[in-house]
Amino acid sequence: MADQDVINFQTHPDQYKHWKLEIDDDVATLAMDVTEDATLKPGYELKLNSYDLGVDIELYDAIQRLRLEHPEVRAVILTSAKEKVFCAGANIRMLGSSTHAHKVNFCKFTNETRNGIEDASAQSGQTYICLINGTAAGGGYELALAADHIMLVDDGASAVSLPEVPLLAVLPGTGGLTRVVDKRHVRRDHADYFCTLTEGIKGKRAVDWNLVDEIVPSSKLAEIGKERAKEFAAKSDRPAGSSGVELKPLNREFSENGIDYDHVKITLDRKVRVARITVSAPDQAPPQAIEDIHAQGSDFWPLALARELDDAILHLRTNEPDLGTWVFATAGDAAHVLAADAALAANAQDWLVRETTLYLKRSLKRIDVTSRSLVTIIEPGSCFAGTLLELVFAADRSFMLLGTFEGDNRPAATLRLSEANFGPYPMGNDLTRLETRFLGNPERIVGLRSKIGEDLDAEAADRLGLVTFIPDDIDWEDEVRITLEARASLSPDSLTGMEASLRFAGPETLETKIFGRLSAWQNWIFQRPNAVGKEGALSQFGTGHKAEFDMNRV
Amino acid sequence: MADQDVINFQTHPDQYKHWKLEIDDDVATLAMDVTEDATLKPGYELKLNSYDLGVDIELYDAIQRLRLEHPEVRAVILTSAKEKVFCAGANIRMLGSSTHAHKVNFCKFTNETRNGIEDASAQSGQTYICLINGTAAGGGYELALAADHIMLVDDGASAVSLPEVPLLAVLPGTGGLTRVVDKRHVRRDHADYFCTLTEGIKGKRAVDWNLVDEIVPSSKLAEIGKERAKEFAAKSDRPAGSSGVELKPLNREFSENGIDYDHVKITLDRKVRVARITVSAPDQAPPQAIEDIHAQGSDFWPLALARELDDAILHLRTNEPDLGTWVFATAGDAAHVLAADAALAANAQDWLVRETTLYLKRSLKRIDVTSRSLVTIIEPGSCFAGTLLELVFAADRSFMLLGTFEGDNRPAATLRLSEANFGPYPMGNDLTRLETRFLGNPERIVGLRSKIGEDLDAEAADRLGLVTFIPDDIDWEDEVRITLEARASLSPDSLTGMEASLRFAGPETLETKIFGRLSAWQNWIFQRPNAVGKEGALSQFGTGHKAEFDMNRV
Repeated sequence: MADQDVINFQTHPDQYKHWKLEIDDDVATLAMDVTEDATLKPGYELKLNSYDLGVDIELYDAIQRLRLEHPEVRAVILTSAKEKVFCAGANIRMLGSSTHAHKVNFCKFTNETRNGIEDASAQSGQTYICLINGTAAGGGYELALAADHIMLVDDGASAVSLPEVPLLAVLPGTGGLTRVVDKRHVRRDHADYFCTLTEGIKGKRAVDWNLVDEIVPSSKLAEIGKERAKEFAAKSDRPAGSSGVELKPLNREFSENGIDYDHVKITLDRKVRVARITVSAPDQAPPQAIEDIHAQGSDFWPLALARELDDAILHLRTNEPDLGTWVFATAGDAAHVLAADAALAANAQDWLVRETTLYLKRSLKRIDVTSRSLVTIIEPGSCFAGTLLELVFAADRSFMLLGTFEGDNRPAATLRLSEANFGPYPMGNDLTRLETRFLGNPERIVGLRSKIGEDLDAEAADRLGLVTFIPDDIDWEDEVRITLEARASLSPDSLTGMEASLRFAGPETLETKIFGRLSAWQNWIFQRPNAVGKEGALSQFGTGHKAEFDMNRV
Repeated sequence: MADQDVINFQTHPDQYKHWKLEIDDDVATLAMDVTEDATLKPGYELKLNSYDLGVDIELYDAIQRLRLEHPEVRAVILTSAKEKVFCAGANIRMLGSSTHAHKVNFCKFTNETRNGIEDASAQSGQTYICLINGTAAGGGYELALAADHIMLVDDGASAVSLPEVPLLAVLPGTGGLTRVVDKRHVRRDHADYFCTLTEGIKGKRAVDWNLVDEIVPSSKLAEIGKERAKEFAAKSDRPAGSSGVELKPLNREFSENGIDYDHVKITLDRKVRVARITVSAPDQAPPQAIEDIHAQGSDFWPLALARELDDAILHLRTNEPDLGTWVFATAGDAAHVLAADAALAANAQDWLVRETTLYLKRSLKRIDVTSRSLVTIIEPGSCFAGTLLELVFAADRSFMLLGTFEGDNRPAATLRLSEANFGPYPMGNDLTRLETRFLGNPERIVGLRSKIGEDLDAEAADRLGLVTFIPDDIDWEDEVRITLEARASLSPDSLTGMEASLRFAGPETLETKIFGRLSAWQNWIFQRPNAVGKEGALSQFGTGHKAEFDMNRV
């Protein structure tokens, strides 16, 4: 892949082209102001605050910085800096000219970003309020739907809409359908009507149907918006007078066959289409005292790890689509990993520690919804303990060496459970990975909890159901190799569908519905001629020609 | 559509070509014995107990008759009459040569049939036990997964497998992935491994991983199987000494533009691609005394209605794919409908009444998962009360005339709630349609319950949130017409995805996961070149050529 085609997920407010971030005391205002020609790829213009992945990468960056760099911010106003337009959603020409894979990846990232907004409102005492100061169409309204409180200007023109079905023959791709009925409890017949209207719904009906929370005269929008923000801010538990942590640029180095971060090293094995991701324990035990943690800032190992994993996942997903299997490994001293877990647990009440834990949760969740086969390898020298042990439970399969390698004098690998495996990192289904693994057997979880702190060798790990296979050194190389080769020979599409179906046993949530149900339908529709064929709606949009549809129902 | 292409869902044990049904006291044995050349369409042979839709139609018929014609049957043994082969799953050549729409419809029906098996085990005191007397591959194992208890012969060869991913680059299409992790709680890493194995898993490991419940020596399979059946039968609450109800052939008459059943009349309006389905109340109040209900047998209106709706839905889904909207109406005396509801409620403890209510539940569920837009029309002369009112709540939109038509001296339409709207007909998400409609507002349900028995005119129905729109006679015709025309102009694919996403707010169950998540992924994969392209796995299967895959992950 040529360098200029690599999509970079790192940015900084100084470089924003599409968003204006202002902070006034405890309220931040994040205003969308998309620069039409500052597109990620050529061939389209970002008119009317429509967006492409580049716009959303900036939004994601802003949200993350608000959480970590601005503990003083307790409410965020999401609005537009353009007159009469809030946001026109994902750019249609961009969608029309994108590959299937790009569309799907784009939707996944935008979904994760909106889930992050909801996570900030629900978990971080940083409530998002959306001021819709004009039309909010499609992805524009879906962005609003991520906020806790939606205000719509009542000017006789401004409306919210999900016009994807009537206009483009696709679905609202960023959780809109699910959030309308499952989050906002819009009645299904109202939702049905709403989602077939090109022009959307405005004014009182938008409130009556619960599409928005309140309507406000144009002249009062800013004032009442600020008032609401202050009301939400007053309920926040974020600390007064604490200073944030600068998210320093990541150290990362790309080479032909890999990427090196401080604690995450990736080797790209293109022959077997595998990315090997090795996470290192900190060189020394992270600080335990909260002042020292704050002093380390973004160098605090758990936070650095969350950021590096995050970036690595996004990079590999987007830029290395043919590396179909990710192999996780770890290296270093498990005691240091457990010390990091202990530091997080002991200081859980601190805002920065809370944010760090939530960030780790989100990075681990990204792994769960990644359409790659996940294999974890546990060898001597590894440090699968506590937080890092989640990489074993997130895997589709894991291999743990029974005993040692001949000629290797390192001790046999062990696993170590910590409290981190029993709560702070739920999956999208709101269960821990262990609860999902042992669905219907809560007594297994109780039993595992009693093993916290024990060194679990391969036989113990196998007996407890923590790993899939425990070959000895004679079989090890062949077993792992055959697994990776076999995986590389299978159809990537069927693996994606299979993994998405097997990973999330148990209850479903807004999140799993979005990634499992809505995304699957959207992916299907993104393949259908009615949407993407030559005569399909996405191709014909804006040409003056009407799309031609196959009218058979499937 | 030429008559010979119409797929007929009505059959009778006398006509079975693929199943042997034997009843011995309280245990029935349903043995699969597929006739290779008795295929529904030309071009393939049903070797090794593989099946097509025709085989599954017989299975469905047998299951229904066991429930209604055989109250004495308390356990059902599902097995194969062939040596060393239980069932090879859906016929691959049939799949390879089928249209996308046929594959999807086929999977939906087979899923519903397996859900019906689970419903019989859970609700009817008729437990299914599966005796796997040979290989059970793909759909063969998925059929077993629908049973409450799975026994696998331990002969060193017989195995259970889901080889779709490695063999065909598609998913197990009949709930296998979901049932493995969500019903049987197979660990996700075990499931992942299992679902990539062509040869499957046999013997002790199949039990250890909970893929089956027990393994049994070949020589003892029949004996121990019978023993287990007797154990389950002993726990059943089905009545001793009661005689069943003969399911008489349906009266139905097909014409160019419609189908007439006794209580369901269908008009096909091909110009606007609409099927109008009018359900009639019984001519007189159905009997209230249990002896009289039994005496009516399959003529008892609620049972007749369940059967006619069932057949009508299956017929329209399969044979009229371009009629994208179904419009429900009713005609007759609401008092008679409520009398039927009263008869069901008063005799709920009777086995036949229970079966009738469960049948109505299943027919209504079929509507929910039908990929057609559902509109209900409420006019003077209609009888939307109790059970029939569910047709309003199942609709994507409903229209109720405010007042009367000029020159029509019938009184304005009213709705009437009964207890039938508050429990006996849950949707796949295990909530009633009203609970789903008012998700998150349980107080609304309490309020509605207090209205049972009241005549609710259009304004009251609107106020209570029971209907979508209440145009008066001046606007009525235009509003309804415009809605139907607009619906007919939209892409059927995007409507399918939208409706599937909006209809099932709230919790998810095995059933909604299968229809919403698994089916959507399968539909996507059924469109992808890796499966269905010229070089794809379904096309290349059995040719000796290897499929060629695009190795990029999406």
